[in-house]
Amino acid sequence: MLIGKACRFGGRVRSCVLTPLARFFVSSSNMAKSKFEYVRNFETDDTCLRNCYIVVRLDGRNFHKFAEQHKFTKPNDNRALGLMTRSARSVMEELEDIVIAYGQSDEFSFVFKRTSTWFKRRASKLMTHVASQFSSSYVFYWKEFFGEQPLLYPPGFDGRVVLYPSNRNLRDYLSWRQADCHINNLYNTVFWTLVLKGGLTTTQAEDRLKGTLAADKNEILFSEFDINYNNESALHRKGTALIWEKRDETVTKRMKLPNKEEKDVAVTRSRRRVEAYHCDIIGEQFWEEHPDILEDDNC
Amino acid sequence: MLIGKACRFGGRVRSCVLTPLARFFVSSSNMAKSKFEYVRNFETDDTCLRNCYIVVRLDGRNFHKFAEQHKFTKPNDNRALGLMTRSARSVMEELEDIVIAYGQSDEFSFVFKRTSTWFKRRASKLMTHVASQFSSSYVFYWKEFFGEQPLLYPPGFDGRVVLYPSNRNLRDYLSWRQADCHINNLYNTVFWTLVLKGGLTTTQAEDRLKGTLAADKNEILFSEFDINYNNESALHRKGTALIWEKRDETVTKRMKLPNKEEKDVAVTRSRRRVEAYHCDIIGEQFWEEHPDILEDDNC
Amino acid sequence: MLIGKACRFGGRVRSCVLTPLARFFVSSSNMAKSKFEYVRNFETDDTCLRNCYIVVRLDGRNFHKFAEQHKFTKPNDNRALGLMTRSARSVMEELEDIVIAYGQSDEFSFVFKRTSTWFKRRASKLMTHVASQFSSSYVFYWKEFFGEQPLLYPPGFDGRVVLYPSNRNLRDYLSWRQADCHINNLYNTVFWTLVLKGGLTTTQAEDRLKGTLAADKNEILFSEFDINYNNESALHRKGTALIWEKRDETVTKRMKLPNKEEKDVAVTRSRRRVEAYHCDIIGEQFWEEHPDILEDDNC
Amino acid sequence: MLIGKACRFGGRVRSCVLTPLARFFVSSSNMAKSKFEYVRNFETDDTCLRNCYIVVRLDGRNFHKFAEQHKFTKPNDNRALGLMTRSARSVMEELEDIVIAYGQSDEFSFVFKRTSTWFKRRASKLMTHVASQFSSSYVFYWKEFFGEQPLLYPPGFDGRVVLYPSNRNLRDYLSWRQADCHINNLYNTVFWTLVLKGGLTTTQAEDRLKGTLAADKNEILFSEFDINYNNESALHRKGTALIWEKRDETVTKRMKLPNKEEKDVAVTRSRRRVEAYHCDIIGEQFWEEHPDILEDDNC
Repeated sequence: MLIGKACRFGGRVRSCVLTPLARFFVSSSNMAKSKFEYVRNFETDDTCLRNCYIVVRLDGRNFHKFAEQHKFTKPNDNRALGLMTRSARSVMEELEDIVIAYGQSDEFSFVFKRTSTWFKRRASKLMTHVASQFSSSYVFYWKEFFGEQPLLYPPGFDGRVVLYPSNRNLRDYLSWRQADCHINNLYNTVFWTLVLKGGLTTTQAEDRLKGTLAADKNEILFSEFDINYNNESALHRKGTALIWEKRDETVTKRMKLPNKEEKDVAVTRSRRRVEAYHCDIIGEQFWEEHPDILEDDNC
Repeated sequence: MLIGKACRFGGRVRSCVLTPLARFFVSSSNMAKSKFEYVRNFETDDTCLRNCYIVVRLDGRNFHKFAEQHKFTKPNDNRALGLMTRSARSVMEELEDIVIAYGQSDEFSFVFKRTSTWFKRRASKLMTHVASQFSSSYVFYWKEFFGEQPLLYPPGFDGRVVLYPSNRNLRDYLSWRQADCHINNLYNTVFWTLVLKGGLTTTQAEDRLKGTLAADKNEILFSEFDINYNNESALHRKGTALIWEKRDETVTKRMKLPNKEEKDVAVTRSRRRVEAYHCDIIGEQFWEEHPDILEDDNC
Repeated sequence: MLIGKACRFGGRVRSCVLTPLARFFVSSSNMAKSKFEYVRNFETDDTCLRNCYIVVRLDGRNFHKFAEQHKFTKPNDNRALGLMTRSARSVMEELEDIVIAYGQSDEFSFVFKRTSTWFKRRASKLMTHVASQFSSSYVFYWKEFFGEQPLLYPPGFDGRVVLYPSNRNLRDYLSWRQADCHINNLYNTVFWTLVLKGGLTTTQAEDRLKGTLAADKNEILFSEFDINYNNESALHRKGTALIWEKRDETVTKRMKLPNKEEKDVAVTRSRRRVEAYHCDIIGEQFWEEHPDILEDDNC
Repeated sequence: MLIGKACRFGGRVRSCVLTPLARFFVSSSNMAKSKFEYVRNFETDDTCLRNCYIVVRLDGRNFHKFAEQHKFTKPNDNRALGLMTRSARSVMEELEDIVIAYGQSDEFSFVFKRTSTWFKRRASKLMTHVASQFSSSYVFYWKEFFGEQPLLYPPGFDGRVVLYPSNRNLRDYLSWRQADCHINNLYNTVFWTLVLKGGLTTTQAEDRLKGTLAADKNEILFSEFDINYNNESALHRKGTALIWEKRDETVTKRMKLPNKEEKDVAVTRSRRRVEAYHCDIIGEQFWEEHPDILEDDNC
């Protein structure tokens, strides 16, 4: 023990004069701090490899139960999807250098540009800040989507960081997530159609779908329920891609004229804002239409 | 490109029969997914070294500005400190294996026991889940502490993971944070006393404190404002340590008697709950009084 | 302690019968091993990020002193450079997937192809095997280059691993090493010319060169010693690049004819072998002439 | 491309005057180097966690084949074991801070003290230097152990780094390796006794030993071949532990007396040297007898 308990951190009683010893005690807290500071050296450097895309993916914790408790509609709840997208938008607006985000179900992926130096590319800082901003936004914007239905408890998300060295790798990552969205949504659509419209129990619906291929599921929807899956909501089939877009905005500004009179003038300015897309991001078209998202590989 | 754009993901038009080719297309989304799944191998293993304490520390992002905008009282805002502690308690109750948490100002540290296997000790999962649960709780419990004063925007926290191999190292880490609390709070107490009671401008107060030691600051408080720093709030001077404690609870239970009558019976059961301490955690006493927090070094 | 000291690991004295207890003891070493095996879990995964070039660079330890003690000629010792290259060739022939190696002075860099799965891409295995094979080869082949001059002690090299995500990054790495070779060799050439031909002391030569640019050094060589630096040995100016090349070899094989007679037949077969180049690898020409070294970026 | 190919790196032809443009070219190699130097930032920090033992273990590559080709005697070749130990001693003498090394068969583990700052605790540097020094020593000292029998090719070793936070963990690691030594050596001893003395084929010996416990193997040796395994060579049963020991050495020094005469004086000085032990390191005794190897856990 460095210093006496009673006097640690500069305490003294009223009547006593500040003796040299007391002076030692009251100034020793600074020394104490420097004595402990060696523990900083136990932090390890987790800088992300340069010239790679940094992907942070968040996944809801126990969202199956969360969805039950908050009575999410089946197979998709537009309020919940809207809230996920609103929270992701909040992340993009708060953190620098996210060039695209893609979400579906209870997950969202955020892609930092390969040359980003945000947070000095420290993986821990990047992923915790994303997880934090997303989670606080989820609670903050709950009311916008669920109105008076109360949020019962604060939800949790976990995250991870993955690096992708090439545009091909990054696009394949996003394709992987969108293919996952498709497979799950097709399954869920048929499953809940069988239950809600076909009158099957959930066990019966499960049995019915065991071993079926995508084509079989499309067939069930089409021939039994007259549903063309391709006409289903793009939001559900494709998920949500968020990107930055420049838009020209025309605003009216009051300006002073040389003769000191004032006048309203229409001013056009270019503003970057986050736009949502519910479209295929596996094929070439999306990337050809938005050539600014990816940087050249050989840089 | 794998498959034709129009038909990707099982689309077909109403009138057409499901030809073998279509069948190929509609089932190819599964193949597509497996084609992309190689991207999973880009994830790296970030398992924390065994037999080390895992510390996750969160820090508020831009909390200086956040405090201004939400009119936090100076030098300490008890509502804000209470909300931090409430959020930390939510983290401890939600995640397993946190043996102690320590917070002060806009930071909170969470210590996982050295033998924890929560999340398979994956650093990214541990820190993002902590950051997420803390942040969603901060917004969720805002009202409990700030009442009708609105939260203006969702706040952000960033985090990091540090490993400590020995009890000494871990205690020195916690001592480092408490020494930091002391130094900052002593400074802030004198600074705001000079401004609010002494009538100095913030610049004058800053100048006055330049180069002063802890003893000098105590002296200013004592001789000029009749304040004994040691009598100031322990919450502000020592910060908040959260630990698990077993408490015996006596509850009344209605029990059926053999004669089918019912009767109220007092039942005592042991329950673990999170308790808050605002005391010195640098010295031996706290650790001697709570011997269950730390595990033996040589295990 | 698990088991009695005298009997650990199955010991027993001649006269004693193998009692059940002894049986326990003698079989307990296996149990002991499994009891300790948990320590394997302290190993961490250091798999290199996929789709990146893996570069292992070795540097001689205390080679300044080593060169002195073994009387290396100044400014370059062709025997020493030859031995480095021979050792590097041994590494390339022993390990799979090295597509190019570049060496100069007492360093050598080895580039594994971006899709390599050698050693499951484990960084520690890759770099230690390279360091080991290079070092044992250096001693093994010493005599081929230094003849009867004895090697006084076993030399040491240290190594590191660096990942490069794009062809541009990898080429810039190799350019960096070759630019380093040029700068050092130009300096050393002028320095030792001033000393050996110009009669300066080493201190005088050092002073003379302080602050000079490449142009100044060329000028000294040219105007004072009639040396055109560009005519100096390419090995010294450019270092050594080792790559795999396919060569057609014609060998004579004795074959049996249908009539059971034998006949010598010339057979041409393609063989891969390591070739050394002492040329510019910064510009495009080398890479255009050897298009197989690098893989396409967007894969 | 930065600069013209012909002039890169300061070249110029004899007749031409050094024009400003040429001056640009000849000085541009330095600029070129700085242009490429960004590639250094792709190196990642691999500092070992503080206050942990750093273990580097080397394993022979393809030593089964190496042993065959160099006609190692079965089941143990004392020359080969001696050479391993000699090489390990060379590593200990060359690198700082190795407190104990343990070897058996074709592997050797080196333990750096927990407070070591050698190579700034950079894992890559530590393990490659160990691998390099060991491998060059293996070839260098070959003759001392194998005399005129030639080394046919340079052998390879691979290595890894593992961290252990507590004395218990470290001792369990060493116990694990010694238990492994015991199990393998017992098996090999019986196997080769069955083959060389019992006249079994290797396949027959293998079958005979399938499913046997340590006790069974001891029994075979004892009852069939009159061999008490415990009397076998400790080197083979226990492997080799290398530690530093202080020894008092008495040397004779010639000293000048005040009367200017000279006289031989016996001087005792303490010298550290590496000593080899072939004893149990699993139990307490070894560690009690050498209390300086391990540092206190709680530091």
